[in-house]
Amino acid sequence: MKLAPPDPGLLSVNTATVREKWNLREMIQGCARHGIRGISPWRDKLAEVGAKEAAKLIRDHGLTVTGLCRGGMFPAADRKGRQAALDDNLRAVEEAATLRARCLVLVAGGLPTESKDLAGAREMVRDGIGELLDRARATGVPLAIEPLHPMYAADRACVNTLEQALDLCDALDPERSGALGVAVDVYHTWWDPKLEAQIARAGKKRILAYHICDWLVPTRDLLTDRGMMGDGVIDLPKIRSWVERQGYAGCHEVEIFSALDWWQREPDEVLAVMKRRHVECS
Amino acid sequence: MKLAPPDPGLLSVNTATVREKWNLREMIQGCARHGIRGISPWRDKLAEVGAKEAAKLIRDHGLTVTGLCRGGMFPAADRKGRQAALDDNLRAVEEAATLRARCLVLVAGGLPTESKDLAGAREMVRDGIGELLDRARATGVPLAIEPLHPMYAADRACVNTLEQALDLCDALDPERSGALGVAVDVYHTWWDPKLEAQIARAGKKRILAYHICDWLVPTRDLLTDRGMMGDGVIDLPKIRSWVERQGYAGCHEVEIFSALDWWQREPDEVLAVMKRRHVECS
Repeated sequence: MKLAPPDPGLLSVNTATVREKWNLREMIQGCARHGIRGISPWRDKLAEVGAKEAAKLIRDHGLTVTGLCRGGMFPAADRKGRQAALDDNLRAVEEAATLRARCLVLVAGGLPTESKDLAGAREMVRDGIGELLDRARATGVPLAIEPLHPMYAADRACVNTLEQALDLCDALDPERSGALGVAVDVYHTWWDPKLEAQIARAGKKRILAYHICDWLVPTRDLLTDRGMMGDGVIDLPKIRSWVERQGYAGCHEVEIFSALDWWQREPDEVLAVMKRRHVECS
Repeated sequence: MKLAPPDPGLLSVNTATVREKWNLREMIQGCARHGIRGISPWRDKLAEVGAKEAAKLIRDHGLTVTGLCRGGMFPAADRKGRQAALDDNLRAVEEAATLRARCLVLVAGGLPTESKDLAGAREMVRDGIGELLDRARATGVPLAIEPLHPMYAADRACVNTLEQALDLCDALDPERSGALGVAVDVYHTWWDPKLEAQIARAGKKRILAYHICDWLVPTRDLLTDRGMMGDGVIDLPKIRSWVERQGYAGCHEVEIFSALDWWQREPDEVLAVMKRRHVECS
């Protein structure tokens, strides 16, 4: 069955996709120029402008902030490191509130230096999110746990499946208040035999963001070889149909780390291709 | 709690670990020379000698064949391709029987060319194993489904978690006859939050092989950058304790794809280091 193409108005650009050649101001202007209405900034780009100035720029250009990337990175070798992570996360919540972001994306963090204690790291993630959650509730910024592909378990995120992320949601927000949910990124989750079932389990209330790109074959680098929609093997319309079936009506955020291809191109070309592929291939 | 070191007599060498410099005859002689009592040949190496001659050589040197690598690769774009895969698998079963291998390791296979139908590929895997199982029962060769890391879902194996592999076992061999089980490879499964629980679910009867190596940080290549035990982040004694708790008393098979490091070294050095690290780090 051929699925209907997505609403072009739901396209959002994650700033990682054009991070090599544009600063945040150029990204905001670029989105407006291309008629793209959603943006998701990374905090390094945000820091160059400042959250208040960025919020004004984004508002002036009529954009929605579909997420702030990123909080998280909770595990650390000692108490001091964990406190520093929490402090940084509290700042991220404030920034997300200033931007009126739909969510703060949380990338869990991997193993502390020298550690092989994966279960311990996962406990630190649970505790860290738990500590952050009150502040997030108070500021009205939902936290979106983003499970990352298992190939990042050691060094970036020890939350690696949607099931695991939803278990955390159940543990920390059993009342399904809306303050805690997940970011579903097809790159990290497309392989999962339980993906459809876990998207259904998440339901509309817990799907806070939907990220798209593609999985290339071969993948030449673990971190920076993501593909543009249509260039890889992910059945994007099918996964979109699963999130839509739950009532998800938010944006489709394009996040492409691509040192060898898209980061080399002119961002105006990247945005033009992205707009076309969003409609044709996702 | 410090776990007791493993029995040195349980070490087995997967021929992939020394494949660049040795043929099967040299591997068999090398194992005997180093006092290593288990070997797991890949079929490309086996083909150079022939299964009968290899079986004699292995027997003459007093080695146990802990597995034959590999059958599987079931999905194909058309009926002809699927039949060719099945025929090849039937030959693999015969070879495994000739070698008196403890199991035939099955690597599922990925997406057929041009396909994005992951669920369809998984159905082909289920059907393929189902077709192979009768012959495997008749020859007394257990089939060991090896879930591969999710980063191989597209091009090598669409069975990516132990849970998924055990679901296949339940579907195809509900009576737990012993004819179908799993190969637990730490490289592919260490990240899985459900690993301990799924090893317990498998139980002694379904754990047919246990493969070890290590996950390096950073990992520089998706396929050929595995580490020697102790050089990475996997808590090997802990995972071993989980399989031992189920009564698994088989070998610990070392399978290291390492284009940049171990494949460059003299195999005698590789085996010497492997013996030491097996006892000290796994």
